[in-house]
Amino acid sequence: MKVVELRAWGLENLVLAERPEPQPGPRQVVVRVRAASLNYRDLLLVRGTYNPKQKLPIVPCSDGAGVVVAVGDRVTRVRPGDRVCPTFHQAWLAGEPSRERLRATLGSPLDGTLAELMLLDEEGLVAIPGDLSDEQAATLPCAAVTAWNALVTAGGVVAGDTVLVQGTGGVSIFALQLGVLLGARVVVTSSSDAKLARARELGAWEGINYKEVPAWGVRARELTGGRGVDHVVEVGGAGTFEQSLQALRPGGTLSLIGVLAGAALELRLPAIQMRMLRVQGLLVGHRDSFEAMNRAIAHHGLRPVVDQVFPLAEARAAFEHLASGAHFGKVVVRI
Amino acid sequence: MKVVELRAWGLENLVLAERPEPQPGPRQVVVRVRAASLNYRDLLLVRGTYNPKQKLPIVPCSDGAGVVVAVGDRVTRVRPGDRVCPTFHQAWLAGEPSRERLRATLGSPLDGTLAELMLLDEEGLVAIPGDLSDEQAATLPCAAVTAWNALVTAGGVVAGDTVLVQGTGGVSIFALQLGVLLGARVVVTSSSDAKLARARELGAWEGINYKEVPAWGVRARELTGGRGVDHVVEVGGAGTFEQSLQALRPGGTLSLIGVLAGAALELRLPAIQMRMLRVQGLLVGHRDSFEAMNRAIAHHGLRPVVDQVFPLAEARAAFEHLASGAHFGKVVVRI
Amino acid sequence: MKVVELRAWGLENLVLAERPEPQPGPRQVVVRVRAASLNYRDLLLVRGTYNPKQKLPIVPCSDGAGVVVAVGDRVTRVRPGDRVCPTFHQAWLAGEPSRERLRATLGSPLDGTLAELMLLDEEGLVAIPGDLSDEQAATLPCAAVTAWNALVTAGGVVAGDTVLVQGTGGVSIFALQLGVLLGARVVVTSSSDAKLARARELGAWEGINYKEVPAWGVRARELTGGRGVDHVVEVGGAGTFEQSLQALRPGGTLSLIGVLAGAALELRLPAIQMRMLRVQGLLVGHRDSFEAMNRAIAHHGLRPVVDQVFPLAEARAAFEHLASGAHFGKVVVRI
Amino acid sequence: MKVVELRAWGLENLVLAERPEPQPGPRQVVVRVRAASLNYRDLLLVRGTYNPKQKLPIVPCSDGAGVVVAVGDRVTRVRPGDRVCPTFHQAWLAGEPSRERLRATLGSPLDGTLAELMLLDEEGLVAIPGDLSDEQAATLPCAAVTAWNALVTAGGVVAGDTVLVQGTGGVSIFALQLGVLLGARVVVTSSSDAKLARARELGAWEGINYKEVPAWGVRARELTGGRGVDHVVEVGGAGTFEQSLQALRPGGTLSLIGVLAGAALELRLPAIQMRMLRVQGLLVGHRDSFEAMNRAIAHHGLRPVVDQVFPLAEARAAFEHLASGAHFGKVVVRI
Repeated sequence: MKVVELRAWGLENLVLAERPEPQPGPRQVVVRVRAASLNYRDLLLVRGTYNPKQKLPIVPCSDGAGVVVAVGDRVTRVRPGDRVCPTFHQAWLAGEPSRERLRATLGSPLDGTLAELMLLDEEGLVAIPGDLSDEQAATLPCAAVTAWNALVTAGGVVAGDTVLVQGTGGVSIFALQLGVLLGARVVVTSSSDAKLARARELGAWEGINYKEVPAWGVRARELTGGRGVDHVVEVGGAGTFEQSLQALRPGGTLSLIGVLAGAALELRLPAIQMRMLRVQGLLVGHRDSFEAMNRAIAHHGLRPVVDQVFPLAEARAAFEHLASGAHFGKVVVRI
Repeated sequence: MKVVELRAWGLENLVLAERPEPQPGPRQVVVRVRAASLNYRDLLLVRGTYNPKQKLPIVPCSDGAGVVVAVGDRVTRVRPGDRVCPTFHQAWLAGEPSRERLRATLGSPLDGTLAELMLLDEEGLVAIPGDLSDEQAATLPCAAVTAWNALVTAGGVVAGDTVLVQGTGGVSIFALQLGVLLGARVVVTSSSDAKLARARELGAWEGINYKEVPAWGVRARELTGGRGVDHVVEVGGAGTFEQSLQALRPGGTLSLIGVLAGAALELRLPAIQMRMLRVQGLLVGHRDSFEAMNRAIAHHGLRPVVDQVFPLAEARAAFEHLASGAHFGKVVVRI
Repeated sequence: MKVVELRAWGLENLVLAERPEPQPGPRQVVVRVRAASLNYRDLLLVRGTYNPKQKLPIVPCSDGAGVVVAVGDRVTRVRPGDRVCPTFHQAWLAGEPSRERLRATLGSPLDGTLAELMLLDEEGLVAIPGDLSDEQAATLPCAAVTAWNALVTAGGVVAGDTVLVQGTGGVSIFALQLGVLLGARVVVTSSSDAKLARARELGAWEGINYKEVPAWGVRARELTGGRGVDHVVEVGGAGTFEQSLQALRPGGTLSLIGVLAGAALELRLPAIQMRMLRVQGLLVGHRDSFEAMNRAIAHHGLRPVVDQVFPLAEARAAFEHLASGAHFGKVVVRI
Repeated sequence: MKVVELRAWGLENLVLAERPEPQPGPRQVVVRVRAASLNYRDLLLVRGTYNPKQKLPIVPCSDGAGVVVAVGDRVTRVRPGDRVCPTFHQAWLAGEPSRERLRATLGSPLDGTLAELMLLDEEGLVAIPGDLSDEQAATLPCAAVTAWNALVTAGGVVAGDTVLVQGTGGVSIFALQLGVLLGARVVVTSSSDAKLARARELGAWEGINYKEVPAWGVRARELTGGRGVDHVVEVGGAGTFEQSLQALRPGGTLSLIGVLAGAALELRLPAIQMRMLRVQGLLVGHRDSFEAMNRAIAHHGLRPVVDQVFPLAEARAAFEHLASGAHFGKVVVRI
């Protein structure tokens, strides 16, 4: 079977390779991957900054979708022919996170989805919701589950709450779309009025161009009549954190899910303490969250926003496109 | 000022009367009521079955809407001219229920909303959301807050969950409309296909005619692919309880908010225990719930379903209409 | 290996039998059982009333403790020599209950702990906490986890809360002991002053002899100065339910975990609705609860109360002792 | 009546003054204060760094205890003779924090407890639990409620959880004592072995001398067998934050309640994100928390640790003692 392997740090070291076909043991499943989707984490991995201790070669990417082609003994959750997505955390089914549950993640340290076939534990799969295409379904495991987990599991967002979403990358667009399903009013920031217009088409209540309005956190609070937003889905990190705190209402929640605009932050702690804010770190979420989200996606017919699809042989170009920041929604590789 | 008083048990003892105009003391407010709305509780009160110890005369009804016309010293939450609804529980602002918080309810034991003017504590009010008319806003305090509390506070309903709503009375229609805002898929039961059609127009996912399908709980479970519904808003009581339990998924919640179809139930407890169901009794909810709901109503432009409006002088006819069960949504009295 | 098999309904059909020794497949484990413990559920099973559809023969009992003697491929959670308890729900690790998670329970439909060796999935085990003996540890899987789940997961009991526990059977004594660890004040009911005295030695705050005080629910409420208890651990069912509701504060929780005093109840629903009570059905709990409880047991050195220990050959006598109701705490079989 | 006024920034500007006796209006209460207690916030206020916009003169201190001596019209919650504590947040009774609820705090911007008499809203009081002395009760409103809120409301700490407490100041000692009531195992840090010994007498499970073990967070994690602590009550701020994160288990909670060791922090956000930590800012808590805590204090007979008591005329010396950092527990002023 074909895979894309990373043999040394750097995009130039992504190569198409051949590996033996896997056979399922008891409680294991083989999935034919039809599409994979890229996250910023995958880019950091390839560059060698996400997990410098990762042994190479590795098959990158955690997100994908495909079909079960073989099952081992004692498999009860799926059957050949089932359309499935793998879970990012192969061993986190439900409950609180723990060292054991967070260890086994696809795309590092485990081989990921840029492969024709994957050998997975039967517990590490969920059914594809509704009639999503392979490309659409491939975007869910990391990006969409992170957004759901931020809004629902960590945030308890309900109809009428205000959610602020930063930019128009993969997680942020899902946070926008899922926020709308939950009945929230969603404020989106971007440096591009064109992207803000597209965000409004997806249901955003308001958009703020942060180039024009550097104090966008203050503006967001004003949009709520001074009350402040209930929830911020923080993907920027150091470059955006302070304005995010400005945006929040007393007692509001910041879900920290990425650090695209810097990891090291100069923070004044009273800004958190005196207004009783909550900062919740998130690394995707468990399988129960994935399945709950899928029920929402299926009921509402939500369509993930696929920015562009590349063939497997051009996986490197897909990474370069992601690195450019020009995308709106998800970058997908067809396998 | 004019009020409608109940001077003895029975609809025939509802009379239009004159009372002195109230003056606000410190932290008190006078509200000119523009519309009141009826709940089944009000009918039971008038018949003498809700609270036989109630001293008469009393001004019935807990739900209404109006405008602040006078404020006493040290009032900070409202100003003359503010459009407001009273809260059902005048003293329950937030937190867990307690004897003290549940004691002071409008329409019994306190005088209610069938009055031109009401004297209220400034804490016992909320702002009318969005641009609702007086008649629409008058339906919120008891019926809508109960539905919100069932779904959100007690139920934790999120997008993709399945909610079952019984019939098309006031609370049930709100549970349908609010369930839709929350992103839930809502199943409605009714004995009338015409009412089911209207429920679908309001966003219901499925309707079940319980005359045609006596085992409607089993049917509801089938509609979910055998999984069961996540939440039942129980207004029927004894006559519907067993099918409600049948409908629920393991771990599901039944919000018990009314007993229209009987109060005394023959119940087999293992039906609750073995499937880990939760039965949550609800008596409206606190002011924080009301305000959270109002944010959702305002954002989504939700319109309460007003069935029919009666003038104050015909309040008795309004009660008779409610008693007939022919209504769809809320019965309102214009004051 | 030796097992006790039930070959037909009735205590007289419990027989000592020989079965082949199990071998562990991938991700499976063989445990040498040292002690088993009886629950009322086991007695009902043997009598044929718990699960009349159960195929026979079956090895009864869900609770036990032992040592891992062999592990299959890909087992990572345990090693030979580890002292372990099986989990009641072999497939419920964490999260919400579901049909799939509740299906695989020991002692019916799966073979249980009255066996020298058990073949289990590696996920279906927890480490024995602290230095508990085999007999003590054998009491935990069903009885103690149920009590923990009632108090902590369903009840959210914290220090200063009042918990009412009915009688001095296995679950109730654990609810007493665990309630004390949590800092709650625990009220125990019993028909025996001697048992109440023992309950006080275990930390009970108050005892009520329900023979002398038939309105023990009212008495319990009085003990709290009229506020009502926060939580009732209901094991009696129909025979005790009404007084339990009387005991509770507005908004309080009744954890329904057994129906020893009757399954069919004549219930007035407004008793639940008007005081906003919550009735939470419980069937043991997930592995995460078990492990959280074990941390509490280990830290506090809690000692399960073992009433009497029988050898395997006298398993029937153990059941008869349980049926007599004379026990205080748990009945154990040494294997 | 006598008060201690701050007339300009600086300890030297605390002066004993005379003010007219207050009279209660409707729903108001006059309390004769018997004892006040100091928090670090009060010291910062006096120095002019806590709230530089505060208008002077002001009566400092939020914590105290006394007796109701007069009540206005329509007061129902208390009667003359009742022993009470004021609440820190006079207007936050329950529910989520909001701008309105957090505005009215004693000791700034409102006059505080260093006064013979206080005029308070009847809602801004709680009954003194059990038989605490005035000096003991005076320590509760800010310090103890903050600790309770960290552990219970924000932390959900249950028996068997591990809690790390920094140092032996007022909040930390309460977090230790309350953590023990909740059944948690509590790790205390200090620079003094003598203080650690006293902490062990109060029930601490382990103590770490952070002078001897600069990587005390790593040590704390080791003490839990590598799992990490469930909860950190953070009073140090910048100087301790990083080790606190080291100590926590994946998914653990840091309650941020003070910044004694620095407010400005250089923080690497992935340390929070990748391990799914939660940072919860806290500013005391609502009245419901206070009353829940008081039930726990009364049941367990918890005795607040009073370090030293000063007469009102020597209030300045009390502040100096607090500033020295030599105290263990609370500094009190007798009035």
